Amino acid sequence: MKTRIETDSMGEIQVDDSKYWGAQTERSLHHFHIGNDRFPREMIRALGVLKKSAAIVNAQLGLLTEEKKNLIVQAADEVISGKLDEHFPLSVWQTGSGTQTNMNSNEVISNRAIEIAGGTKGSKKPVHPNDDVNKAQSSNDTFPTAMHIAAAEQLVNKLLPALEQLKNTLKKKSDEFKDIIKIGRTHLQDATPLTLGQEFSGYVKQLEYNIERVKSVLPSVYRLALGGTAVGTGLNTHPEFAVKAAAQIAKETGLPFTSAENKFEALAAHDSLVETHGVLKTIAASFMKIANDVRWLSSGPRCGIGEISIPENEPGSSIMPGKVNPTQSEQMTMVASQVIANDVAVNIGGASGNFELNVFKPLIIHNVLNSIRLLADSAVSFEEHCARGIEPNKENIKEHLKNSLMLVTALNPHIGYDNAAKIAKNAHKKGTSLKESGIELGLLTSEQFDQWVLPEKMISPSVD
Amino acid sequence: MKTRIETDSMGEIQVDDSKYWGAQTERSLHHFHIGNDRFPREMIRALGVLKKSAAIVNAQLGLLTEEKKNLIVQAADEVISGKLDEHFPLSVWQTGSGTQTNMNSNEVISNRAIEIAGGTKGSKKPVHPNDDVNKAQSSNDTFPTAMHIAAAEQLVNKLLPALEQLKNTLKKKSDEFKDIIKIGRTHLQDATPLTLGQEFSGYVKQLEYNIERVKSVLPSVYRLALGGTAVGTGLNTHPEFAVKAAAQIAKETGLPFTSAENKFEALAAHDSLVETHGVLKTIAASFMKIANDVRWLSSGPRCGIGEISIPENEPGSSIMPGKVNPTQSEQMTMVASQVIANDVAVNIGGASGNFELNVFKPLIIHNVLNSIRLLADSAVSFEEHCARGIEPNKENIKEHLKNSLMLVTALNPHIGYDNAAKIAKNAHKKGTSLKESGIELGLLTSEQFDQWVLPEKMISPSVD
Amino acid sequence: MKTRIETDSMGEIQVDDSKYWGAQTERSLHHFHIGNDRFPREMIRALGVLKKSAAIVNAQLGLLTEEKKNLIVQAADEVISGKLDEHFPLSVWQTGSGTQTNMNSNEVISNRAIEIAGGTKGSKKPVHPNDDVNKAQSSNDTFPTAMHIAAAEQLVNKLLPALEQLKNTLKKKSDEFKDIIKIGRTHLQDATPLTLGQEFSGYVKQLEYNIERVKSVLPSVYRLALGGTAVGTGLNTHPEFAVKAAAQIAKETGLPFTSAENKFEALAAHDSLVETHGVLKTIAASFMKIANDVRWLSSGPRCGIGEISIPENEPGSSIMPGKVNPTQSEQMTMVASQVIANDVAVNIGGASGNFELNVFKPLIIHNVLNSIRLLADSAVSFEEHCARGIEPNKENIKEHLKNSLMLVTALNPHIGYDNAAKIAKNAHKKGTSLKESGIELGLLTSEQFDQWVLPEKMISPSVD
Amino acid sequence: MKTRIETDSMGEIQVDDSKYWGAQTERSLHHFHIGNDRFPREMIRALGVLKKSAAIVNAQLGLLTEEKKNLIVQAADEVISGKLDEHFPLSVWQTGSGTQTNMNSNEVISNRAIEIAGGTKGSKKPVHPNDDVNKAQSSNDTFPTAMHIAAAEQLVNKLLPALEQLKNTLKKKSDEFKDIIKIGRTHLQDATPLTLGQEFSGYVKQLEYNIERVKSVLPSVYRLALGGTAVGTGLNTHPEFAVKAAAQIAKETGLPFTSAENKFEALAAHDSLVETHGVLKTIAASFMKIANDVRWLSSGPRCGIGEISIPENEPGSSIMPGKVNPTQSEQMTMVASQVIANDVAVNIGGASGNFELNVFKPLIIHNVLNSIRLLADSAVSFEEHCARGIEPNKENIKEHLKNSLMLVTALNPHIGYDNAAKIAKNAHKKGTSLKESGIELGLLTSEQFDQWVLPEKMISPSVD
Repeated sequence: MKTRIETDSMGEIQVDDSKYWGAQTERSLHHFHIGNDRFPREMIRALGVLKKSAAIVNAQLGLLTEEKKNLIVQAADEVISGKLDEHFPLSVWQTGSGTQTNMNSNEVISNRAIEIAGGTKGSKKPVHPNDDVNKAQSSNDTFPTAMHIAAAEQLVNKLLPALEQLKNTLKKKSDEFKDIIKIGRTHLQDATPLTLGQEFSGYVKQLEYNIERVKSVLPSVYRLALGGTAVGTGLNTHPEFAVKAAAQIAKETGLPFTSAENKFEALAAHDSLVETHGVLKTIAASFMKIANDVRWLSSGPRCGIGEISIPENEPGSSIMPGKVNPTQSEQMTMVASQVIANDVAVNIGGASGNFELNVFKPLIIHNVLNSIRLLADSAVSFEEHCARGIEPNKENIKEHLKNSLMLVTALNPHIGYDNAAKIAKNAHKKGTSLKESGIELGLLTSEQFDQWVLPEKMISPSVD
Repeated sequence: MKTRIETDSMGEIQVDDSKYWGAQTERSLHHFHIGNDRFPREMIRALGVLKKSAAIVNAQLGLLTEEKKNLIVQAADEVISGKLDEHFPLSVWQTGSGTQTNMNSNEVISNRAIEIAGGTKGSKKPVHPNDDVNKAQSSNDTFPTAMHIAAAEQLVNKLLPALEQLKNTLKKKSDEFKDIIKIGRTHLQDATPLTLGQEFSGYVKQLEYNIERVKSVLPSVYRLALGGTAVGTGLNTHPEFAVKAAAQIAKETGLPFTSAENKFEALAAHDSLVETHGVLKTIAASFMKIANDVRWLSSGPRCGIGEISIPENEPGSSIMPGKVNPTQSEQMTMVASQVIANDVAVNIGGASGNFELNVFKPLIIHNVLNSIRLLADSAVSFEEHCARGIEPNKENIKEHLKNSLMLVTALNPHIGYDNAAKIAKNAHKKGTSLKESGIELGLLTSEQFDQWVLPEKMISPSVD
Repeated sequence: MKTRIETDSMGEIQVDDSKYWGAQTERSLHHFHIGNDRFPREMIRALGVLKKSAAIVNAQLGLLTEEKKNLIVQAADEVISGKLDEHFPLSVWQTGSGTQTNMNSNEVISNRAIEIAGGTKGSKKPVHPNDDVNKAQSSNDTFPTAMHIAAAEQLVNKLLPALEQLKNTLKKKSDEFKDIIKIGRTHLQDATPLTLGQEFSGYVKQLEYNIERVKSVLPSVYRLALGGTAVGTGLNTHPEFAVKAAAQIAKETGLPFTSAENKFEALAAHDSLVETHGVLKTIAASFMKIANDVRWLSSGPRCGIGEISIPENEPGSSIMPGKVNPTQSEQMTMVASQVIANDVAVNIGGASGNFELNVFKPLIIHNVLNSIRLLADSAVSFEEHCARGIEPNKENIKEHLKNSLMLVTALNPHIGYDNAAKIAKNAHKKGTSLKESGIELGLLTSEQFDQWVLPEKMISPSVD
Repeated sequence: MKTRIETDSMGEIQVDDSKYWGAQTERSLHHFHIGNDRFPREMIRALGVLKKSAAIVNAQLGLLTEEKKNLIVQAADEVISGKLDEHFPLSVWQTGSGTQTNMNSNEVISNRAIEIAGGTKGSKKPVHPNDDVNKAQSSNDTFPTAMHIAAAEQLVNKLLPALEQLKNTLKKKSDEFKDIIKIGRTHLQDATPLTLGQEFSGYVKQLEYNIERVKSVLPSVYRLALGGTAVGTGLNTHPEFAVKAAAQIAKETGLPFTSAENKFEALAAHDSLVETHGVLKTIAASFMKIANDVRWLSSGPRCGIGEISIPENEPGSSIMPGKVNPTQSEQMTMVASQVIANDVAVNIGGASGNFELNVFKPLIIHNVLNSIRLLADSAVSFEEHCARGIEPNKENIKEHLKNSLMLVTALNPHIGYDNAAKIAKNAHKKGTSLKESGIELGLLTSEQFDQWVLPEKMISPSVD
């Protein structure tokens, strides 16, 4: 391995010459050999956006030459595009301010910019990682800014479309199933009827509300810490830097980022992301309900509920046809469980700031991005490989409805509560249908039963 | 104990005649002897509001006589007022739909109404617990409605004022402390300065945002399930009942309750309360940060940070003056921990609905109301017995600022980075002040130091 | 209200003369008006045991007169018995060391001892709350000691018997059901058969292991902090005090308490209780599985699985016979959820010690005792009102077994895998039984089917 | 990309010919494109161990030819060694029984064995993935067996050595620091003294107990599900298979694995891993305490506690010497937070089994292995880059001790409590030392003070 010498305030260190990173990244690699988690694409991209925007604004404010700015922008664009991802090797489990990953981005952009300019990597000329790339910035404000950029982009560009996709498919199913009357179930026990469409409309509404929840939390995520520098005072920044930089980031991303009103809050607390994950765990709770209903409704084929069928994506059993394991429900309930767990990490991390800085930043963003990714991927997978293929098993649905004793409530107005109860009790005891029981007891005729017991009248409010 | 006979569909049962409850409550007492938790005042009140409103609307719709309505309203008003709390003895750990507590309210109101009417308790005449008090209702829609009423009232009437109270006091402190320059701390290490007022402004902003968060989640809580009856279809309700009942509840409470658009979602999921608790846990995270800062800043008296002093409410040590244990911070951090834990209960409960009903309702509302109560009480206690008495220890603050080596950054423009670093390193090594070190090294004079090192210039953005 | 004056190092304060508590308790009541949670009976009893034991040992060591010792023992015995519970009014949400509740016990025992001696309450003569009752103790070591006493007593005297009771009943059921062959279910899908007894044997084994888990964690709980005093050094204690006091507590309780080897660990960390709650949450996970299985197996009566029936304890539906809501499963799953949530509180509390003291003690013991109580009560309730009344629905079980297509695997050795699969596929497509399908396809006779397909051969290992 | 055709019961599918996996793995890749998490090395190795052991036992029982066995063993050894890791591409978020990863291992071993034998990949000859590699197995018993193998190996080979390493270093420090007397701190407030060695001994004891905890939970993890096949009955296994296979696995790994007594419990519940993670979260709580103490004790350099210094691994500040950010404490507290969060995932997963199978297996093992890895790596990193370099700052320690007012308690026996309190109050008020205060008040001489106030007498129990 060919190496070069990189330096920082602690001195020299050998770095693999095929990499753009510098001394501080190299030291971090040495000191934090912990776990398998690395910062994901989303976060690297966010750092690129941030560094590019800072350079543009610093140049506008006359604090950075056009030449340097152009070099930084060009290198940052490569970071944004994903071209340099392999140069971001650091563990999530590092300095709690994310300093080393901020420095990683400074070093990579600096060295790549130097290379573009025809300079010598590690020379810090003509683009210095601290003085130029990190200009008017501190890890303490850049890292939380990158956290917000990454979270917002993922919420808007990944999670919202995924939720929409699943919602739309379930809405389509709800519409298709609007006339299929089925038995309701409460406490897992047979209850009064509803339509399969109504049942699915509950899922649709859950997703609609979740889409609203994500949207309503976005303004919190759009608030950026940038401009607070080390402790929130903005020391060493131009008074216009914070607002201009937020505007530039908004321009780069197409999202309405703003400069946080109070930078002390923005550095020392991460309530916005704690709140955001509160929405994510709400989505997880919805997913758990929906995925569970789907797998229970498709349970069987012979000895379960079996009111819907789901696509058979993989062999459920090599000999047993009809054993379609609800594997998409299984991934979704596992994902939901993980997101509910991640929430605890975000809560503890968010609660653990001290004085001017919260140093649980990598933990927080690791979990936030992980949860967004899992929820979005899970929703898309569930939609593509399960939801869109859900079909009603009309025979089973009809059979359950017919067998149910709950329809007896429809007889009250005609033969009185007491007689109706007699019919139900007799049917339950003998294992017969309500109709058979009523006829046997001489309380009604077959025709009367068919005329009076109309499940389609039991699925909406009615004046008695 | 004098008893009377009460009946339900399972038959007769003896009930203490001094109590208004009936057969189903009595059976529940027998079958659910679990834990110490009972439904709180807030929930009993909410059931009273609900039963009163339902009676008024049923009368308007011509489904209940004026006489019955008046009796129910009178009894329900007593439930609302708290007069009948001892008649609500049931455990939180009961049927997952809260059926038994709904029946408890039906039975108490029925029997009290009967008593008012001069009838015989247990006779169900002239006011029947099911046919009259529970008219057009099912436990499945009334209990979640009461959950939302109780949660909304507590959020608005208890939590918001408590947050405002604490925020206002901290704002006052932030203003008072606006000129007190102190050392900043990041990673628990000395950093660049800020004012004590700026530090406190972060807490104020956290609370402001939390107040906004509570307000923004309220519309979810205002959505009421009432009118969905057993499975969400509204079977056995008048088509206008749901909307009118929500309006009546709004009138009773002064809060803008609405009828949930989709009752299937409202019965089978509790995403609204999962979301709401997501806000509560965010507040908990804020409280943890603020309370921790306060106790660390007041640590000492001699061997800690000691930059603020807090009221001495109880003997910290019988002999050691100045040992003021930060007991209000301790209650607040414990409360915050509990709320973060309660969140998990709400999440699991919220995720665990099946088909047409979520049967983790008592668990969910128990934790939601508990968290609201704890956060609100904790905030008020902290405000009264700690926050309002916080005073700066100006001597210590000044001493820390003077001693700090971080002020060296102010010398860069005057003597260059390298010389500044030399001064800091020398001071660190010898344990002297920056000024002493600079003079010793011959790099500046005492006058220059005083002229150049001005912490008050380091607490805001500045053009280089 | 008649009051008397009580004093502490902060001066005088008025106290309700009908109460035994003193100045520090009164101050705490004033400063911690938070939530509804009070320390439970178990904790008060533990403090009584502790104070009694300390007095006995102090007398043995010649540090307390016999007269004082006897007075303290007599008053402490009343605390132990529960007679003085109303004199322990303090909130859980107080000083994080539990100092105020320790002082509450000192004050109550002192004043009651004074009363017994014919003295004047509040006079601190002849028995002083600090100098005598708290002799050789600090809140910092007494409160964790009381935590361990209370937890150990509840684990041994309440939780273990409850687990045994439920295990024994399920074992009885498992034995009774040992010959009932039923369809197995994996992924909620029909699978190969097992006996209902085998299914229940899994629950029995879960409980057996949990009983072992509780027993294996007890030695951690038996370690007592007493003798560590303020910071763990044992300052102001006799060198023999710690060991003798632990022995005396063991004698009082009949449990093998020991003196913790390292008092610094015992005061500053609560890993033992974090570990203990790790066992409690494991029990919760088991309960969730068992209770869920019971309610799903009893789902129906017509449109669910319906393979077992459970006792009907309360009206499930006023008209619908057979709708037996699985309310005991519902309480148990809610309790399990709460315990899993409480675990997070204990974890955060346990993780949050600083230097020589953990000040999240009340939070930790509140949750530990709450979880033990909930699990024990839930198990007993479930056993009495559900488990012991579980009966197999043999008709349904037989019907499911007969209908199942999974039995086809038994045909492989006789007609080959391919033909067996054909039979299953044909049966699935046509909705017929395997037997019907096989005959229809001419692949076997009715007699052959009955001879070859023997579910009773499919419920244990076999040489192919 | 060159492809080949692979088949399963659903038909043909194209697979990259450079990979050993087959049809079911390929389908899973298509259907579960979720998140970034893949099964780790540890789990792949465990599957290799399992498949190898099963083949050996099947051959012993005469159910597999020697030739096939040898081929499987050779291929499985490559899986064990890590050589084939790239052929295990599946997402954690898949079928809840891990079926697809079990099939992945069957397919890879089959195809690699075929290749070794000179056959055609995908031909299933001479080694069939199901009939041979998966012989006498079901995913339902193999996957949980692999989970236990992986967890046990990691606990024994990775976590225990890491805990030992950290414990030994802290023990060494505790011994080195045994004579350094320092001020104690309770409630973050100055308290009575102890030695720095005593303080560290608490950490050592925490780690010792944690090592015991890990060891005590191992027997649960050693219980293997293998032999239960699909539902726990052992259908299609030789009666001796389960016990022999566990013995073979024990031989392969050097760990005393046993066959689980009850396979129904072993498939349908994962209480053993829930319990195991209960130990992991206890370790996390310990780590949080230790890491927090270290960073607070090293806070400063000028404005914090500063009683110890820690190694400077990376630039804390480019200009500020002495600003050593406690980055190893930061990684450790973040790791601890994550482990506490992972616990919730394991709990929910463990609680969510139904009937004969728990289908949250991938979730559970993902979190268990992740937590073990994080804790072990974190401990080693903390030990190497922080703990072993901890040095006392004797000057600061001495200064704090000297300044502290808590030493006043040593004066009680000599000048009486009241006079001692006067000295302390005067010192606190005037900001002087106790000695100065005592002399000023004329209550003692300088010599008397030095003679009476001996911190070294305050660090252990003493008879009055």
